[in-house]
Amino acid sequence: MNKIAVFFGGMSYEHEISIVSAIAMKKVIKKELVFVFVDQNREFFLIPNDKMKSTLFSTGGYKKEQKLEVSNGGFYKRGLFRTTKIDFDVALNLIHGGDGEDGVIASIFNFFDIPFIGPRPQACVLSFDKYITKMFAHEIGVKTVDFIKIDKNNREIKGIDFPMIIKPCRLGSSIGVSVVKEQSELEYALDAAFEFDEDVLVEPFINGVKEYNLAGSMTKEGMVFSIVEEPQKKEFLDFKKKYLDFGRSEQVNSADVEAELIESLKENFTKIYNPFFIGSIIRCDFFVVGGKVLLNEINPIPGSMANYLFEDFNSVVSNILFPKNKKIKINYDYVNKIKSAKGKL
Amino acid sequence: MNKIAVFFGGMSYEHEISIVSAIAMKKVIKKELVFVFVDQNREFFLIPNDKMKSTLFSTGGYKKEQKLEVSNGGFYKRGLFRTTKIDFDVALNLIHGGDGEDGVIASIFNFFDIPFIGPRPQACVLSFDKYITKMFAHEIGVKTVDFIKIDKNNREIKGIDFPMIIKPCRLGSSIGVSVVKEQSELEYALDAAFEFDEDVLVEPFINGVKEYNLAGSMTKEGMVFSIVEEPQKKEFLDFKKKYLDFGRSEQVNSADVEAELIESLKENFTKIYNPFFIGSIIRCDFFVVGGKVLLNEINPIPGSMANYLFEDFNSVVSNILFPKNKKIKINYDYVNKIKSAKGKL
Repeated sequence: MNKIAVFFGGMSYEHEISIVSAIAMKKVIKKELVFVFVDQNREFFLIPNDKMKSTLFSTGGYKKEQKLEVSNGGFYKRGLFRTTKIDFDVALNLIHGGDGEDGVIASIFNFFDIPFIGPRPQACVLSFDKYITKMFAHEIGVKTVDFIKIDKNNREIKGIDFPMIIKPCRLGSSIGVSVVKEQSELEYALDAAFEFDEDVLVEPFINGVKEYNLAGSMTKEGMVFSIVEEPQKKEFLDFKKKYLDFGRSEQVNSADVEAELIESLKENFTKIYNPFFIGSIIRCDFFVVGGKVLLNEINPIPGSMANYLFEDFNSVVSNILFPKNKKIKINYDYVNKIKSAKGKL
Repeated sequence: MNKIAVFFGGMSYEHEISIVSAIAMKKVIKKELVFVFVDQNREFFLIPNDKMKSTLFSTGGYKKEQKLEVSNGGFYKRGLFRTTKIDFDVALNLIHGGDGEDGVIASIFNFFDIPFIGPRPQACVLSFDKYITKMFAHEIGVKTVDFIKIDKNNREIKGIDFPMIIKPCRLGSSIGVSVVKEQSELEYALDAAFEFDEDVLVEPFINGVKEYNLAGSMTKEGMVFSIVEEPQKKEFLDFKKKYLDFGRSEQVNSADVEAELIESLKENFTKIYNPFFIGSIIRCDFFVVGGKVLLNEINPIPGSMANYLFEDFNSVVSNILFPKNKKIKINYDYVNKIKSAKGKL
């Protein structure tokens, strides 16, 4: 794999941080890169590497670049006399949030037979909606923080006391998330969350909880894990801090934690990863409460691919294991059999 | 909604039954129809209504029809001098199995902003993989038959006795499914199931179990349910019988069951349907064992849309409630804010 096409943007609340993530890739990935921007109208644009600056997008300047179309086998630029296929070996899905993490662009890659690094549609659905993630975790034997789900028509919160944390079900990057300490703050926090989603999760906010992030991927040589990071935080990172965080490219130091805890984090990570997340580099964020490891969330496309957590990010990218895409050959056996048995259908 | 585009075919083990389902729609839907065939190479073809016969597909004759391309807002035919948009109000996803029920074509419709009847990507993932369906059912409080999941590397079956039923995780229409009565039949049945999927479910086979099918949809006037059908079966329907079954268009009689059971089936159906399946007409197949209702499977695109179960199928189609597709407006607030704060990113 020599040439990687980085897909970024999308109709997503995390559109802008996807741009920051993509720019970070220029520094991080030691391979030939092609950049494909998905604008908010879901049109594809080929962005020359030397124009990869955030202002090209915020000013609308990208619209002057080459438009691409997707069709069988790849992305194409259509000229007056000929259609040219954009040359790359594999796509890298760096669209955070909607279009990227909800399985939409993955389905497009699958349908048009374009190899890609990133979560497959099933993996997206299991991680994009925090409520489905909880279901999934319970079923595979991974613990989570308690929660209840509420919706616009039923905003009553039963069984969870203050302080609590309010989260839209289907958003990442802390968008619409609030910590609520008392009744007087609740209405506003709920309105803020329902601004972004019909469904909202409510969890107890655990003061002084230890948080650990672990990234990893299945490679041709087996599972590769990153170091364990204890993210710095105040109450929790707000969107602006996370935004800047998405451009990270300097390696961080491993958290000072016992080998036993690291093993337990890796074990939980592996349960989550296999087999649904094969083909992607993900980051799992865990809490540790009373010695127990609890899954907080799965980031199937972490900011700047969590490159800063890996000792050798480029070797992970180069050796990633792709899931098999089964080709189905259709022979029309049944139509033929039934036709010969009973005349034309 | 006056003109419906029926999408059928796909790279799917159920490609052929999708053709049969689509042909049935000609008789059933009292609206103007457009037919779009997805061939096994995932190319789109516009099929004239009078050519909708199964032999057009089995002979490859469809390749002479107009090829379509998908792009923003719809499907297009590209001529030498102009590109014309295919006119329809809403698409109907009739691709059974892969490409249709796994969320792929739904993602393409969503991405390119094409309104459609059919399960959304999330709903597909919850119903396509029978293992995920069990997880989902448990979480929402719907009972299922016991099961274990095995895979190619771990074929050991613990805790389930003969007779048992072996099913590939991600296929419908009884493909690869076997009832195994004794040890000597097991290897062959497992090989048959693993032929189609890496993951296989094993369930106890309950002799003489009562089976009931119920279809329904959320319309603008609330939930509409079909009659309850007790499907005729020998041990279970094999593929050929199901194949013919997919072309059904005659209304069936309601099963002779107590009002209380019907209520319980509807209650379970509603728990499953809301909110993930909004926008689709689905059929749930239930077992009743010792008075308890157990979910057997969710068919998010039932054969011939389960039209024969509804008293007034056309009014369901006309009044179906579509989920909101939230448009996200991107203003580049963060890029602008950060740029003005700290110079160019």
